[in-house]
Amino acid sequence: MQRILSGIQPSGQLHIGNYFGMMEPMLRHMASSELYVFIANLHAMTSVQDKERLAQGTLEAAANFLALGLDPERCIFWVQSDVPEVCELAWLLSVVTPMGLLERCHSYKDKVAKKIPASHGLFAYPVLMAADILLYQPHLVPVGRDQKQHIEVARDIAGSFNSTFGETFMLPDGEINASTAIVPGLDGQKMSKSYDNTIPIFADEKTLRKRVMLIQTDATPVAEPKNPDTCNLYALLKLFAAPERLQEIHDLYMHGGAAYGYLKQELFELINARFAPARERKKELLANPEHIRDLLRQGAEKAREKGARTLALARERVGQGY
Amino acid sequence: MQRILSGIQPSGQLHIGNYFGMMEPMLRHMASSELYVFIANLHAMTSVQDKERLAQGTLEAAANFLALGLDPERCIFWVQSDVPEVCELAWLLSVVTPMGLLERCHSYKDKVAKKIPASHGLFAYPVLMAADILLYQPHLVPVGRDQKQHIEVARDIAGSFNSTFGETFMLPDGEINASTAIVPGLDGQKMSKSYDNTIPIFADEKTLRKRVMLIQTDATPVAEPKNPDTCNLYALLKLFAAPERLQEIHDLYMHGGAAYGYLKQELFELINARFAPARERKKELLANPEHIRDLLRQGAEKAREKGARTLALARERVGQGY
Repeated sequence: MQRILSGIQPSGQLHIGNYFGMMEPMLRHMASSELYVFIANLHAMTSVQDKERLAQGTLEAAANFLALGLDPERCIFWVQSDVPEVCELAWLLSVVTPMGLLERCHSYKDKVAKKIPASHGLFAYPVLMAADILLYQPHLVPVGRDQKQHIEVARDIAGSFNSTFGETFMLPDGEINASTAIVPGLDGQKMSKSYDNTIPIFADEKTLRKRVMLIQTDATPVAEPKNPDTCNLYALLKLFAAPERLQEIHDLYMHGGAAYGYLKQELFELINARFAPARERKKELLANPEHIRDLLRQGAEKAREKGARTLALARERVGQGY
Repeated sequence: MQRILSGIQPSGQLHIGNYFGMMEPMLRHMASSELYVFIANLHAMTSVQDKERLAQGTLEAAANFLALGLDPERCIFWVQSDVPEVCELAWLLSVVTPMGLLERCHSYKDKVAKKIPASHGLFAYPVLMAADILLYQPHLVPVGRDQKQHIEVARDIAGSFNSTFGETFMLPDGEINASTAIVPGLDGQKMSKSYDNTIPIFADEKTLRKRVMLIQTDATPVAEPKNPDTCNLYALLKLFAAPERLQEIHDLYMHGGAAYGYLKQELFELINARFAPARERKKELLANPEHIRDLLRQGAEKAREKGARTLALARERVGQGY
C-alpha cells in the first residue's frame, strides 16, 4: 500500500480553502493508503514564539482535523515534537546538505521579506522538513505549490546522504494539489489568511453569515443575465450545491433572475449545514482535551516505531554505532 | 560544586600539545569539580563522513582519555549522540538564533577557506555546540582560543531564549586555556596536527623516538653557549624534566656543553616514561571494547538524567506541552 505523509501547521483558523485543498485529499488518501499526518509544532516555532499560543494552537489543530473526519484508527496522527527522532535525523542530514541548496530556497527569502525574523530556524526549515519526510519513508507527499521546492530539497538531501553513506532513504514524490487554487476568497483572489478573504470553517453561525455576505459581486441588476464563470459567488456555490440545484442557479445566471443576496443566503445555509456537525464535534473534543492528548500520544507511539527504524539505519550508516 | 563541561573531537592522534592544553586541565578539574566530558561524534560528522573512521575514532578517543586518567567514577563521560536530547534542544535554540550571529562566526569561514565542504552542518555547528553546553547548565566551559567565539554565541543564544520564553538557561563562562600556546611543535610553531609538527602520545617507541629526533635546533656547536629561551627542544624539556635536572640543562645552555642529540635522546626517554603506562593501558582497553562501551553507556545515562531535566524545562517554556 502506498504510504503518504502530510504535515499541518498548528496556527490559525481553518478556512474552506484549506478544506478543499488539504482536508478533502487527506480523507481520500485515508481511505486508500497508509496515511501519516502530523501537526508541525516544531516548524510553527519559527513564527509562533508564545507558549500559550503554540500549545493551544496544537490542541485546536488536532481537534479541527479530528472533527472534520480524520480517523486515528485509520491513519497515524501525531504531534511532531513527540517524535524527537526527527531532530536527530535533521542533524545527520545537515552534514550532507550543501549551504547553496538552502540559500536557493525561495520560502526563506519570501518570509524574511515579509518581516518574519531571519532566524536560523527559518533558514534550516527545509532540513527539518526533509527529516520529517525521510524519517517515515513515504512514497508521496501532498503539498501546496509554495512547498514544492522543499520536496525537491528533501529529495536532493536524501540523494546526497545515500551517495555519501550508502542507500538509506527512499526518494519521495511530491503531489501538488491543483484544486487549492480554485477556491476563491471573498474578493476573488485565492482564499488565504494573508489576504484576509477567508470563510472560516469553525466560526459560529453569526460570523459565518457575516463573512458570506461580504462576498464581492458586481452591480448587474437581478433581472439581467450574468456570467457565472467570472463570479466568485458562483464558484463557491459550485463547491457546495447539489448538481441539480447548481444547474438551476446556472440557468438563472444565464437568463436573468439570479439575486446575489438570496444566493448568498443559500450559500451560507449550505456551508453551515456541511460544517455544523464538525463544529459540534469540535466542541465535544475540546471539552475533553485529555482524550485528544491520548489519541495523539498513541499516534506518536506508532509514528516512532516507524521513525526509530529509519533513524537506527541512518545512525548505523554514518558510524554512530562505535 | 562548580560544573564544568568539555567536548573532545574523536578524530586524529592525540599529541602532547593536546595533553597539556586539554587533558591536564581536565584531570585537574576532575579532582575539584563536577566534570562532564563528551566525545563530539555529531560535530565530527561535519568533517568525517566515513562510517568506519567515525566509529573507530569514537572508540579510540574513549580509550585515549580513559588511558590518560579520565576516571568514569569521578566524572560523567559519554558519547554525544547517545544523548539525543541535544538535537532536540538544538532546534529549540535555532528559532531564537539570528542568522547574523552565525554568519559572523570565523570558524565556518575558516573551514570553508580550508576546503572543508560548506555544508549546513558546518554552518549550524555553533547552534549544536550551544545545545551541547546549555543542556547541562555548566558554570564553566574550557576551550581553545579558536572556540572562544562559539562560547559567546552560546551565551547570546541562551540570552535570546531566556528573554523570549522566560529564564531557562544559565549563561556559562568560557575558560581560555593559555598554556596550549606554549607547547611548541617540532618546528617551533604551535604544535598542531595541521602543521604536521606533532609528537604523538600513543605512538610506539620507535615512532616516538623518530619524531623527537626531528625537533629542529640551530647549528651552534656543542661547546658554545646557547639561548634556552629560543630553543624548542628546551621548551619541550621544560614540560618533562624534573626541576633539578632542568636547572642543570639550563646551565649547559648558558655556559656551553648542551649537545642537542644527547638532549633529544633524554627528552625521548622522559616522554616515553611518562606515557608508556598509558600506552599499555590503552592496549588493554581496546582489547575489550565492550567494556569501553559499557562505561560510555553508563555515562550517557547519567548525562541524560541531567539533560532530560533541562530539555523538559525548555519544551515546557516554548509550549510543546499542548
